[in-house]
Amino acid sequence: MSKGLKIVTIGGGSSYTPELLEGFIKRYDELPVSELWLVDIEAGKEKLEIVGNLAKRMVKKAGLPIDIHLTLDRREALKDADFVTTQFRVGLLEARAKDERIPLKYGVIGQETNGPGGLFKGLRTIPVILDIVKDIQELCPNAWLVNFTNPAGMVTEAILRYTNHKKIVGLCNVPIGIEMGIAKLLDVEHSRIRIDFAGLNHMVYGLDVYVDGVSVKEKVINLLTDPNNSSFVKNIDGLGWEPGFLKAFNVLTCPYHMYYYKTDEMLEKDLKNYEKGETRAEVVKKLEDDLFELYKDPNLAIKPPQLEKRGGAYYSDAAVRLISSIYNDKRDIQPVNTINNGAIAGIPADSAVEVSCMITKDGPKPITVGELPVAANGLVQQIKSFERIAAEAAVTGDYDTALLAMTINPLVPSDRVGKEILDEMLEAHKEHLPQFFQKVEA
Amino acid sequence: MSKGLKIVTIGGGSSYTPELLEGFIKRYDELPVSELWLVDIEAGKEKLEIVGNLAKRMVKKAGLPIDIHLTLDRREALKDADFVTTQFRVGLLEARAKDERIPLKYGVIGQETNGPGGLFKGLRTIPVILDIVKDIQELCPNAWLVNFTNPAGMVTEAILRYTNHKKIVGLCNVPIGIEMGIAKLLDVEHSRIRIDFAGLNHMVYGLDVYVDGVSVKEKVINLLTDPNNSSFVKNIDGLGWEPGFLKAFNVLTCPYHMYYYKTDEMLEKDLKNYEKGETRAEVVKKLEDDLFELYKDPNLAIKPPQLEKRGGAYYSDAAVRLISSIYNDKRDIQPVNTINNGAIAGIPADSAVEVSCMITKDGPKPITVGELPVAANGLVQQIKSFERIAAEAAVTGDYDTALLAMTINPLVPSDRVGKEILDEMLEAHKEHLPQFFQKVEA
Amino acid sequence: MSKGLKIVTIGGGSSYTPELLEGFIKRYDELPVSELWLVDIEAGKEKLEIVGNLAKRMVKKAGLPIDIHLTLDRREALKDADFVTTQFRVGLLEARAKDERIPLKYGVIGQETNGPGGLFKGLRTIPVILDIVKDIQELCPNAWLVNFTNPAGMVTEAILRYTNHKKIVGLCNVPIGIEMGIAKLLDVEHSRIRIDFAGLNHMVYGLDVYVDGVSVKEKVINLLTDPNNSSFVKNIDGLGWEPGFLKAFNVLTCPYHMYYYKTDEMLEKDLKNYEKGETRAEVVKKLEDDLFELYKDPNLAIKPPQLEKRGGAYYSDAAVRLISSIYNDKRDIQPVNTINNGAIAGIPADSAVEVSCMITKDGPKPITVGELPVAANGLVQQIKSFERIAAEAAVTGDYDTALLAMTINPLVPSDRVGKEILDEMLEAHKEHLPQFFQKVEA
Amino acid sequence: MSKGLKIVTIGGGSSYTPELLEGFIKRYDELPVSELWLVDIEAGKEKLEIVGNLAKRMVKKAGLPIDIHLTLDRREALKDADFVTTQFRVGLLEARAKDERIPLKYGVIGQETNGPGGLFKGLRTIPVILDIVKDIQELCPNAWLVNFTNPAGMVTEAILRYTNHKKIVGLCNVPIGIEMGIAKLLDVEHSRIRIDFAGLNHMVYGLDVYVDGVSVKEKVINLLTDPNNSSFVKNIDGLGWEPGFLKAFNVLTCPYHMYYYKTDEMLEKDLKNYEKGETRAEVVKKLEDDLFELYKDPNLAIKPPQLEKRGGAYYSDAAVRLISSIYNDKRDIQPVNTINNGAIAGIPADSAVEVSCMITKDGPKPITVGELPVAANGLVQQIKSFERIAAEAAVTGDYDTALLAMTINPLVPSDRVGKEILDEMLEAHKEHLPQFFQKVEA
Repeated sequence: MSKGLKIVTIGGGSSYTPELLEGFIKRYDELPVSELWLVDIEAGKEKLEIVGNLAKRMVKKAGLPIDIHLTLDRREALKDADFVTTQFRVGLLEARAKDERIPLKYGVIGQETNGPGGLFKGLRTIPVILDIVKDIQELCPNAWLVNFTNPAGMVTEAILRYTNHKKIVGLCNVPIGIEMGIAKLLDVEHSRIRIDFAGLNHMVYGLDVYVDGVSVKEKVINLLTDPNNSSFVKNIDGLGWEPGFLKAFNVLTCPYHMYYYKTDEMLEKDLKNYEKGETRAEVVKKLEDDLFELYKDPNLAIKPPQLEKRGGAYYSDAAVRLISSIYNDKRDIQPVNTINNGAIAGIPADSAVEVSCMITKDGPKPITVGELPVAANGLVQQIKSFERIAAEAAVTGDYDTALLAMTINPLVPSDRVGKEILDEMLEAHKEHLPQFFQKVEA
Repeated sequence: MSKGLKIVTIGGGSSYTPELLEGFIKRYDELPVSELWLVDIEAGKEKLEIVGNLAKRMVKKAGLPIDIHLTLDRREALKDADFVTTQFRVGLLEARAKDERIPLKYGVIGQETNGPGGLFKGLRTIPVILDIVKDIQELCPNAWLVNFTNPAGMVTEAILRYTNHKKIVGLCNVPIGIEMGIAKLLDVEHSRIRIDFAGLNHMVYGLDVYVDGVSVKEKVINLLTDPNNSSFVKNIDGLGWEPGFLKAFNVLTCPYHMYYYKTDEMLEKDLKNYEKGETRAEVVKKLEDDLFELYKDPNLAIKPPQLEKRGGAYYSDAAVRLISSIYNDKRDIQPVNTINNGAIAGIPADSAVEVSCMITKDGPKPITVGELPVAANGLVQQIKSFERIAAEAAVTGDYDTALLAMTINPLVPSDRVGKEILDEMLEAHKEHLPQFFQKVEA
Repeated sequence: MSKGLKIVTIGGGSSYTPELLEGFIKRYDELPVSELWLVDIEAGKEKLEIVGNLAKRMVKKAGLPIDIHLTLDRREALKDADFVTTQFRVGLLEARAKDERIPLKYGVIGQETNGPGGLFKGLRTIPVILDIVKDIQELCPNAWLVNFTNPAGMVTEAILRYTNHKKIVGLCNVPIGIEMGIAKLLDVEHSRIRIDFAGLNHMVYGLDVYVDGVSVKEKVINLLTDPNNSSFVKNIDGLGWEPGFLKAFNVLTCPYHMYYYKTDEMLEKDLKNYEKGETRAEVVKKLEDDLFELYKDPNLAIKPPQLEKRGGAYYSDAAVRLISSIYNDKRDIQPVNTINNGAIAGIPADSAVEVSCMITKDGPKPITVGELPVAANGLVQQIKSFERIAAEAAVTGDYDTALLAMTINPLVPSDRVGKEILDEMLEAHKEHLPQFFQKVEA
Repeated sequence: MSKGLKIVTIGGGSSYTPELLEGFIKRYDELPVSELWLVDIEAGKEKLEIVGNLAKRMVKKAGLPIDIHLTLDRREALKDADFVTTQFRVGLLEARAKDERIPLKYGVIGQETNGPGGLFKGLRTIPVILDIVKDIQELCPNAWLVNFTNPAGMVTEAILRYTNHKKIVGLCNVPIGIEMGIAKLLDVEHSRIRIDFAGLNHMVYGLDVYVDGVSVKEKVINLLTDPNNSSFVKNIDGLGWEPGFLKAFNVLTCPYHMYYYKTDEMLEKDLKNYEKGETRAEVVKKLEDDLFELYKDPNLAIKPPQLEKRGGAYYSDAAVRLISSIYNDKRDIQPVNTINNGAIAGIPADSAVEVSCMITKDGPKPITVGELPVAANGLVQQIKSFERIAAEAAVTGDYDTALLAMTINPLVPSDRVGKEILDEMLEAHKEHLPQFFQKVEA
């Protein structure tokens, strides 16, 4: 790798790309990227041009010898890559809007990762990512695939179960967001915080939290349940837990836990946004449109601060930190999605989990967790069942399997409603679900 | 045991007792009961007299040398017992009515076993049963405790975790009911059916079903999803599943699964009954009143057929079959609640499960299950988490732990609503929850 | 199967066959065999004729409509078989003699199942049995394969790991022998004894022992360690254990445990026999020659009592009992070699174990064991490691893997001595180990 | 801890102490020790004086404000300690000589850690260490106990099973020795080497080896099996493996593996030393006598280089590195003995293992291993069984349990020989085994 690293970013036209660029620029000293290939599909060509040109300006301004390549030819890009990152969205935000809105018509939260929306995002995404893996195995078999595409847990599960490519890490910015929130709550530097993360993607718990290695969990939970603190807490997690609930649980939760432990309140909130045409996809769509307008500005050569509102906070840091730790064999601790291998008791050894890992050149090595807290284990297992059946449905294109995945999802109230949502969503996403429709037509 | 067996039935004044008597009479040849002690508390004295006298008439009519003892002195009864059965209801049907009705006020299914109602039934029952176990360990340490009191899974879990008495079996008539339903569906003798049961109490799955040892699962699932068959199926399980859901699931479900996979429909049904004052407790109350009227008839000397409507169908058969198999070391297969010991992968070895066991004089020995079907594992684990936290709350009387149990229950929509239900139910059941209130008063 | 069962016995020319015939005749009422195909290879043709004719006379004398077919054409025989039993010996007793004698030259016990001899028996046998399984999958995919060929544990492991045929049971007469010994020790009927067996083939422990369902383990261990009883005990297990050792172990051992817990004494015994030319193979060879002389007698139409000395005591009973329990879905308890599936904690779920199972038409279902006793677990795991590496060597024909298997065997004192034994045995068995030699020649 | 750390070293009169002092002095900047208490017993008073005075001179020469306290009063020393290290030897080298010599009389390797000698070292040591833990729990409950006393695996197992003190780490210099050997073999800096260690104390395997994070296992194994390299290799591990054995094994071994995979050669070597009166204990005794002569020199104020021959190479580095990583929450990777918690599949979660861990202020967190290589698992499990039964014997003082531990040890050829060795060793070590003798006298 003396010649510098070749990085390929699939979904390169994403509004996130400047975040990633900033990360590569900031860490260039330790991560000598010589080529960055931004890959997109025909439908994303215009965005790719816009964001690609911004990327070029950023690199130029930074005075770094990173070649930016823009291409629609994925296979050309992948040739001899060192790292492949995936951040694409099959069907774009329009599809996400359907993922969120259709379930709400039936009074059900959509939730684009672990909910019915996440099921459909998985059904659209998994076949594409398995195709990418096939290309990687042919064109750059030693490359690490770093996946940011949601539902990251389900996608990692699918890659682990249905391919032989072991160099795969799933990354999410939720854990780093929790760390940042706790750092702010305690008013200490982020680098002094360590959290033992364990669970699944968007279903991860902080089992303990340390400042300078000393557990401060009791203090943190007291702060999080202190009524004097509630406005700050709501700012972090949106709603705030019943104090007794969190005290007995005795873990740090992630924002997505609210969908499961505050289903009614979240549904109400979502329904309001639904009626106002302000579901998350719709809000993000507007943010993105604004961002792309900004990106077009030929004088812009940095990541615009407005990007932070997009929801990808700390994304740059998490992503490039991970790649650098792999490249440099840093052996530092980061929470990622990887194969369980026994780290969390009770979850199959060959399933994906999100867990604090030592990051080495040989990939992430989970720190052993043992048993999850009893109260956490049930929901984690239920989401894992859902992820596994959903991944199976994505690969087989089997209608009944998709109905099973839909029905066992904890947000879905019944097989009947599940079927109604499934049928409407299948139809709505038809063009991106060939595995379900081509067989029928054949 | 040459002198005949001493059986003690705690909650002997129950309307079920004639069912049990019928069982003992029917199997007297293989199970030589010489003494049956019916034990109840002061509040149940009248019923104990009524049902006890019927019991005496039944025995007399059968011409068997079984001595029936009626007593309010539990410790006197337990002395040197061979088997102790528990079928009591702390707070009687009035308490059950609250278990069902209070959650419904908040739009939540009560469900007296695995739902919020079940939590409270557990909170009331577990301290009493642990007390009984303490007496057993002192007065008849070699006796088998056969528990029918719901929530049977949570109760078994509590006994396994919080006592050293290992001679405990939890029994439920749900699995035998499924076997009977399948026998009817296939029009074959019950004895020719075998089902591999695995899961938890009221959350048990039939992993395979055999006639004369040959798997007929595919056929059974086809019948269960055949629209021509739907009225029969609804008769068995109430509502009938979406065909695709059941086909992909590829297991037999139990009626209680409807609370989780048809939550909305069950809630609607429960709410209607709630408004009509016809929740299950209320219906049963009327049935029981009628039954006790019948029982009073000095000419009645058999189990009246009306008892079957009570919901305890096959109860006699299941209960006495189990006791006889233990006594006679029959090594036959019966589904019971017992310690997992690794039979079901992913569930702690020291937790209670409901699983097909070989029944020996040394107790039930689970037939190894291995991994549960992926789609079943999630919900089973969630209920197990609930059972464990609920049992902990029952033992500690800790408010926050009870709130945690309530909130992680899959029927409860949020910590806020959970807290509201919890607070109202704690107040309503105050007199039966000394562990929560005496501390406060002290 | 209304037309009667078709049984195929591979290695039909074995001296054991009359034992098997006796079993089929005795249980004809419950196991209606209509065809028995005795299959052997060219080299065994003469014996096949002799024993086949005896079989015909036995059937005739019994007056049963069982057709006996003698053939060298395995594939013809397998067509539509219901049960296939395997009892062949690649290389005949001459090979076994080498298995036993060559290690002894190096001061090492040969031991034809779990020792260096067993490694070579496995290397010769496994490719043949995998070939048979391939034929079964093609010609009679619904047939149960009941394997008696040693090393039965290693063979079962290999079939489970390297084929998809799940209808395989490994059978051994050691457990039934222990039961018979205990029955005699206690002077009770065999049918009243039940032992919880767990471990591996020829490495199986009796974890508890019951008479009429009541544990008598303490009594049995006291009897087995009572010096007044020693001549009887030695008669059962050859040498007798140090009382304190067995008391602390608190399990029933099998005769093969002496190779591991009395290695020096067994070696001394084996060396004496070696010098006298009376290794087990040599003794058996003489017995067999005598038996075949007897079998030739056209007036003989029963199993001659001399066969019992051969070492296959209870073999008929164990084998036919197993086949009948499968055929009749008896759900009785028998110790067999089958897939672990979690029955014994700490052994891989997909490995073969020898364990008490409920025998059903759908095959053996292990009774859950949980953790093995601590002191037993170590040796069991070591033999399992040996079996797995040995099976891998048999399949791959890899020299280094065979050396690894040899060296990790607990009877082998070092990699150097292991290599010497390996090299001499490879050469000695060359003709039966094509997987190791054909590659080299190619 | 602003006032500086208080360290207590039990067995402070050991010849190793200067090594430890050197470590504390070298790392004083990161590990501000203010008090070092060297504790010994009456019988070790003279040595304590000698080595304690050298320690004082070393500290003085280094110009550091570390107070050295010499005491026979363990409880006084433990008060408010931050770290307690244990490096004592019950019965001194005279006892070790018996551990090694008595088994050799019976033709059995003594081996003072995992062999019969190790059993007796454990029987003498465990009661003492459990007493120390009791004092720690009373006098300095927050202190970390860092144990170097052998058999370190068995001792760690005993503390985990028989106490509630969780702040315990067992340390051994074998892994660091392997790392150093590999660094030398590859001619790279030690800091660039990382090895994934897993197994048990003195039974640890290197599952992979990396230089700068890139696996070089294949290269290392080729070098280790290259005949041109053999003199170097023998220098590392004494004898050198059969190339094919190591290639198929595909792990790095530790020197103690030779006792199990080269039992005959090691026995021969040990017997020669036995006859010459040069068992390891005897050699070490002479080295120690010489060392203490050196230590007496009032002009000596550094660790004398002759100490390296003593066998404790890298000991200082390993010990102080570990303490510093805990104190400073370094989150670096070190192989230590700690609770398994699921890190290694198939070993009980609550047992001690030796495994690469992330070292934090909250203690060692094992990096997840998953399944051990098949060929390694058997022996590891066998030693674990031995360790557990041995620890039980040490705690209970039960003769039969000690005989069981002795007999299941893989170096012991039979229960008979095991009993002979046991009896002679019990007698020889009588004064240090009150748990076995006081009961009898009572």
